[in-house]
Amino acid sequence: MTVPVIVDCDPGHDDVFALWLAAGHPALELLAVTTVGGNVPLEYTSRNARVALSVAGVADVPVAAGARGPLARELSTAEWIHGENGLGGPELPDPDRGASPVRLDDRGATDLIADTLQAASEPVAIIATGPITNVAVLLRDRPELAPRIREVVWMGGSTDRGNATPYAEFNAWVDPEALDQVVRSGVRFTMVGLNVTHRALVTPDVRARLAALGTRTAAFGDELLEFFCRTNDEVFGMPDGPLHDPVAVAVLADPDSVEVVRTRLDVELLGAETVGATSVDLGDMLGREPNAHVVVGIDVERFWDAVATAVERLA
Amino acid sequence: MTVPVIVDCDPGHDDVFALWLAAGHPALELLAVTTVGGNVPLEYTSRNARVALSVAGVADVPVAAGARGPLARELSTAEWIHGENGLGGPELPDPDRGASPVRLDDRGATDLIADTLQAASEPVAIIATGPITNVAVLLRDRPELAPRIREVVWMGGSTDRGNATPYAEFNAWVDPEALDQVVRSGVRFTMVGLNVTHRALVTPDVRARLAALGTRTAAFGDELLEFFCRTNDEVFGMPDGPLHDPVAVAVLADPDSVEVVRTRLDVELLGAETVGATSVDLGDMLGREPNAHVVVGIDVERFWDAVATAVERLA
Amino acid sequence: MTVPVIVDCDPGHDDVFALWLAAGHPALELLAVTTVGGNVPLEYTSRNARVALSVAGVADVPVAAGARGPLARELSTAEWIHGENGLGGPELPDPDRGASPVRLDDRGATDLIADTLQAASEPVAIIATGPITNVAVLLRDRPELAPRIREVVWMGGSTDRGNATPYAEFNAWVDPEALDQVVRSGVRFTMVGLNVTHRALVTPDVRARLAALGTRTAAFGDELLEFFCRTNDEVFGMPDGPLHDPVAVAVLADPDSVEVVRTRLDVELLGAETVGATSVDLGDMLGREPNAHVVVGIDVERFWDAVATAVERLA
Amino acid sequence: MTVPVIVDCDPGHDDVFALWLAAGHPALELLAVTTVGGNVPLEYTSRNARVALSVAGVADVPVAAGARGPLARELSTAEWIHGENGLGGPELPDPDRGASPVRLDDRGATDLIADTLQAASEPVAIIATGPITNVAVLLRDRPELAPRIREVVWMGGSTDRGNATPYAEFNAWVDPEALDQVVRSGVRFTMVGLNVTHRALVTPDVRARLAALGTRTAAFGDELLEFFCRTNDEVFGMPDGPLHDPVAVAVLADPDSVEVVRTRLDVELLGAETVGATSVDLGDMLGREPNAHVVVGIDVERFWDAVATAVERLA
Repeated sequence: MTVPVIVDCDPGHDDVFALWLAAGHPALELLAVTTVGGNVPLEYTSRNARVALSVAGVADVPVAAGARGPLARELSTAEWIHGENGLGGPELPDPDRGASPVRLDDRGATDLIADTLQAASEPVAIIATGPITNVAVLLRDRPELAPRIREVVWMGGSTDRGNATPYAEFNAWVDPEALDQVVRSGVRFTMVGLNVTHRALVTPDVRARLAALGTRTAAFGDELLEFFCRTNDEVFGMPDGPLHDPVAVAVLADPDSVEVVRTRLDVELLGAETVGATSVDLGDMLGREPNAHVVVGIDVERFWDAVATAVERLA
Repeated sequence: MTVPVIVDCDPGHDDVFALWLAAGHPALELLAVTTVGGNVPLEYTSRNARVALSVAGVADVPVAAGARGPLARELSTAEWIHGENGLGGPELPDPDRGASPVRLDDRGATDLIADTLQAASEPVAIIATGPITNVAVLLRDRPELAPRIREVVWMGGSTDRGNATPYAEFNAWVDPEALDQVVRSGVRFTMVGLNVTHRALVTPDVRARLAALGTRTAAFGDELLEFFCRTNDEVFGMPDGPLHDPVAVAVLADPDSVEVVRTRLDVELLGAETVGATSVDLGDMLGREPNAHVVVGIDVERFWDAVATAVERLA
Repeated sequence: MTVPVIVDCDPGHDDVFALWLAAGHPALELLAVTTVGGNVPLEYTSRNARVALSVAGVADVPVAAGARGPLARELSTAEWIHGENGLGGPELPDPDRGASPVRLDDRGATDLIADTLQAASEPVAIIATGPITNVAVLLRDRPELAPRIREVVWMGGSTDRGNATPYAEFNAWVDPEALDQVVRSGVRFTMVGLNVTHRALVTPDVRARLAALGTRTAAFGDELLEFFCRTNDEVFGMPDGPLHDPVAVAVLADPDSVEVVRTRLDVELLGAETVGATSVDLGDMLGREPNAHVVVGIDVERFWDAVATAVERLA
Repeated sequence: MTVPVIVDCDPGHDDVFALWLAAGHPALELLAVTTVGGNVPLEYTSRNARVALSVAGVADVPVAAGARGPLARELSTAEWIHGENGLGGPELPDPDRGASPVRLDDRGATDLIADTLQAASEPVAIIATGPITNVAVLLRDRPELAPRIREVVWMGGSTDRGNATPYAEFNAWVDPEALDQVVRSGVRFTMVGLNVTHRALVTPDVRARLAALGTRTAAFGDELLEFFCRTNDEVFGMPDGPLHDPVAVAVLADPDSVEVVRTRLDVELLGAETVGATSVDLGDMLGREPNAHVVVGIDVERFWDAVATAVERLA
């Protein structure tokens, strides 16, 4: 029994590993990929998603471009981590050519997601690893499709400190209104925040293990990780950069690799210093109804096992 | 060379230990005590401060009552931790009577602080262990006294999670406007937040060590700690309750017991979910000028040594 | 020399007259019509725009549907003024049939606007008479087309009191973020607010004059006005309802009929009581750069002359 | 039957006429005067209140100084209207000397108000003509005195445009938190805003009428009005300056001179552009409980009659 998934992403180094984990893990079936402006502008994220699939030999999954920026704010990007083109490090092949060409679908992201949901024989999970704009647009414009969504698993937010501002994580901070709408939509929602992704560190051991796979995909990934760890070291002083996005995929690929609690999640939309903060009421201080699942623990070994398993099965 | 200090507090169990540490530690000279509505209403905090001093045989330090509530908000109190009278546990003596009577000064808190600052031969430190309303009022109404303040050390805030709401610590949340004004006043300011006070846990070993001192003060303190640990267990699931307030005193009594960084601190005044959050930019994400000192580490052994040293020297 | 215009609307009774003024006035050339969810949901506004054109015999102007709701908020509608279907009063013909059928364009609103701007030989004015969501989306997703926009004239806002809340006008209140983005886009922007539209009252004289035109369009319009004046009387106590939207068209059809000032316009996005207020700094209290044109006066006679002129030229 | 009143003010030219109207009008009995930082800093307003009484020969009313600034914000002043000392125009006598010396009471403003309320045989009205900080402090610190307050009548706010920002009147904008607390206190509250005070214009006729009284007070007043009209002309382009503050006194001196409605008043505390706006729901758009009286009409003739009557009875 595989879980059918759509990945909505803004590659970004760690998004690439999220795509590979979704495409390669035996527990998942990747039905579609959509992109959003986030780490870098939409043109780059749309190209990079296709590069990620093409390198890995995944030629049969449609890729569509979505929102250029957040619902109601200016787009902020993160080139200092991901480089100007969003995938600093390796030389990037042209995804339209080569053995496994991946072209951009004519449909927009929300149309592709809608078509995919409607065509599927069972509800489909959406894994979002960037600002969650596309999912918010889908739920706003096509609310009748909500029952076709198995759940939304999102990499973003934090139960403690942020990385865009002291209390806001980047994906939440870029489009807090979209996040707020998705959380309040009634669709099952799981947040995978910095509190756990900061434990998914790309240590030298991790890099060695992935490199040893010896595949084309692994080699390309190693070049990505080298760049990513260097910029994380420069910006955050973390030489073992945290590989955030694939943790959201692992929640579905290997649910036993994470610990999840049902709790209350509210998104700060107004704060002068804290806009985009994800206020997670772990201790039930506020006495509100739980409205979300929040990942609070991770078995790091199992997580990397899942990543390695997936990458090994790709080209 | 002792450091002259004024303690502004809202006892509260942990405030009592802050007062004892300030009154008993050989490195400090306690010149005055002022009270504020906080953990419980002002009537109780003013009585409790005097009880704390009277029990400890400290009869020569003036105590004055200050603000009933925050500058611009309704007072919220914390009886669920401290009991209805703010010092749940022991039977409370009448501080006006007995061997070491402590009466309430006729002056208001800001007048007592002002007179103390003016009478001192050197700048005086203010240690605040409650909502920082009194200090804000002093700086607003008597700005000419700012140079007479050596520094303000405040227990409150957090660099990560809060205890009143997911991101706001109680003292900050009760009067964020006062905190904002003090931080922006230009007076040297040190924040001692939950990120460190949550390590100052009243373990069974700590309780045994203090109880073994065998003094009247220690016995009274043990009754306080028994109650305090029980309510912390009930409310926060922490049977070893964190003794927040004396850590702020320890910063001056034994500076080597803590690790302090100079960084940027901004107080959230507007957030719908995060009002009162102390946004501490430890990684300099925002590129703003540092404006505060923030305690980020504590030598827990040394801290309890300082507390024991002080309590032992009292009645 | 006619001015080429696109009307973006949410009919709504007064939007119908805006469409007729744009379609019938000799100084304007109506190139396209787009719709938005506003007074009533998008399904109704899209149907109603086509009804308005079909009744008036305007069969050659493309009509496309745009945003269902605001950028980042829930859609609020105004059935209490416009009736459940948005055009309470007359029996509505099927716009797909009859002498002048008007079908819905396959393109979305922003695509139709983009195509129209690109096909035109000169910059085109956009007149928006509802929440300004579509224009914000266009400027966000197709910023390269900004120079093709002659100007944006918008009915909405107010320099004094509002009609959705004490300080917010309905169109501004429904999508303040869209308004803010359009105002700050750099495209020439003119606000036509309640301060002037509340003078464009449908008095008995006005109704008599329009009815006397004796055309099919006039007869249909009279049924609309009867309903509109009744609901305005019930809701606002104004039996002579203000016909807001066509005033925005009159700004281009007969510029001498209005008085315009260049001033500063800021949109309140945060206020607890005032979100959507248009803060117009008529007296330059704030010393900021002017960024908008604001209509502050109207020659009511000339305005109704323009409306009558246009309606008379229609079917 | 006279109405006992306390005037809380920040003179300011128009405050002087408010004091004279309260001191001289036969329908009122002025029991005490308190001052607040507002139009100019507290030192000036406290001196100016005493000058106003001394010039008018009112030597038996205690005057006490209150809050230097608002509850939780920085004080903003209005020297551009009132001059550096707050009473630009006439040479100011020393209020401590001369025929009718008026000295500053040793008590603070809230203590003087409290003592006055307690000493009175019936509830006393408080007329506030500046930022309403002192009244908020009184209600916060001495809530048991609320039943001793007959009502609070406040000059400030607006039902339409403001004069500090497009939507905020100066007194409301300076201390919106204090205003919010007083409105929500449950004490009967009447707002006298710009919507009516902008009709109390100091026309040449008004000036001639007052000057013709020929008294020392009238002559001093004429010098004040000359300056006041000049600065209003310079700042607001209104050569006939609006004499705001005495209108609040007229509400009690001659209730038939104004039209009052009971409605809903909410104070904007959060808005980026609109903080301090008084959102008055005249048309009951929001469906909330009425919580205030708001003056919406004024018989200008009767108002000036009241002022002249009062000034004539003074020295």
